[in-house]
Amino acid sequence: MKNERLMKQMQFIIEVDKLKKVFRQNIVIGTIRNENDAEHSWHLAIMAMLLSEYSSEKNLDVLKVIKLVIVHDLVEIDAGDTFCYDEKAQEDKAEREQKAADRIFNILPDDQAEEIFTLWREFEERKTPEAKFASCLDRLQPLLLNYHTEGYTWQNTDVTSEKVLNRNRFLEENTPELWEYAKEIIEDSVKRGFLRL
Amino acid sequence: MKNERLMKQMQFIIEVDKLKKVFRQNIVIGTIRNENDAEHSWHLAIMAMLLSEYSSEKNLDVLKVIKLVIVHDLVEIDAGDTFCYDEKAQEDKAEREQKAADRIFNILPDDQAEEIFTLWREFEERKTPEAKFASCLDRLQPLLLNYHTEGYTWQNTDVTSEKVLNRNRFLEENTPELWEYAKEIIEDSVKRGFLRL
Repeated sequence: MKNERLMKQMQFIIEVDKLKKVFRQNIVIGTIRNENDAEHSWHLAIMAMLLSEYSSEKNLDVLKVIKLVIVHDLVEIDAGDTFCYDEKAQEDKAEREQKAADRIFNILPDDQAEEIFTLWREFEERKTPEAKFASCLDRLQPLLLNYHTEGYTWQNTDVTSEKVLNRNRFLEENTPELWEYAKEIIEDSVKRGFLRL
Repeated sequence: MKNERLMKQMQFIIEVDKLKKVFRQNIVIGTIRNENDAEHSWHLAIMAMLLSEYSSEKNLDVLKVIKLVIVHDLVEIDAGDTFCYDEKAQEDKAEREQKAADRIFNILPDDQAEEIFTLWREFEERKTPEAKFASCLDRLQPLLLNYHTEGYTWQNTDVTSEKVLNRNRFLEENTPELWEYAKEIIEDSVKRGFLRL
């Protein structure tokens, strides 16, 4: 086939199949299998559809939010999942992820590569209303999974309720009702012994 | 917490985590692990973002397409994945899926349950430009995975190139360039011995 543009798009679509092999710290509820980034991204997309009413910023562009969450973890195909409470691994995260973005996004035709770069940077910078909301979902979703798997990720690590609260405090300003909910399940997790004080 | 609406939304978000445990016929490229519906839905969402230019209908509502693909398989949480070439299983598919929709979508507050019902019906009916395009992606994506896994799903079944062509012929009118591409990889699959004539 001579359609070079389509060939690049197809190559990218095949390449990103690898996101299904990037495993996160969480497990899927009712299993002992780690969740992967593709599943996580889908879960955020459906949360974006249903929870946008809780954003402090009204008139949110929901399509933008969904695009942000669909692409936000693609760089992990090369850079891997960096555990949010692993301070050492956070040090070179930006560099590893930039390199990954350069390789993976540039498989696409230039205009679409640029679109994905722009979305990824927007998500990372957390400045626009859509990026802030997407980032709230990206924090809330693993909290939900942990709460429903007896704190799986929190076991055998030095994660405390203070660390989890601090990570989720980003919700306070951007999604106040979700922040109230997050605080409740963190507190309940401590009560039930899923999470250390 | 007394926010009943949010409680329903959270219950639904936890319920649909189960989509990660509904396995499809395809495997993930480079593995021998079956793909699940959540990963598949994410893959369709990124394809929708990148391939909408190939829709015969211009001015496609991409947000609608993405919403359609994000929710299109939720009913399989109860109804299971029905292999598209299994004629026997197709017989009671509609009934099984309607029952599933009634249970799962109604976990949500009424307005959002109605929204998801409407999206799901729109996808199933394949009448709107967005539903037609979403359906093309839903046919093309497993074809791509099969092509890149040496015809995994096609082995040990009675699937022939004619059946695969017939299933993908829906692309001919709705996404002509993608149909040309589909024909090429089906033909190449036969040449390489991934698929029987």
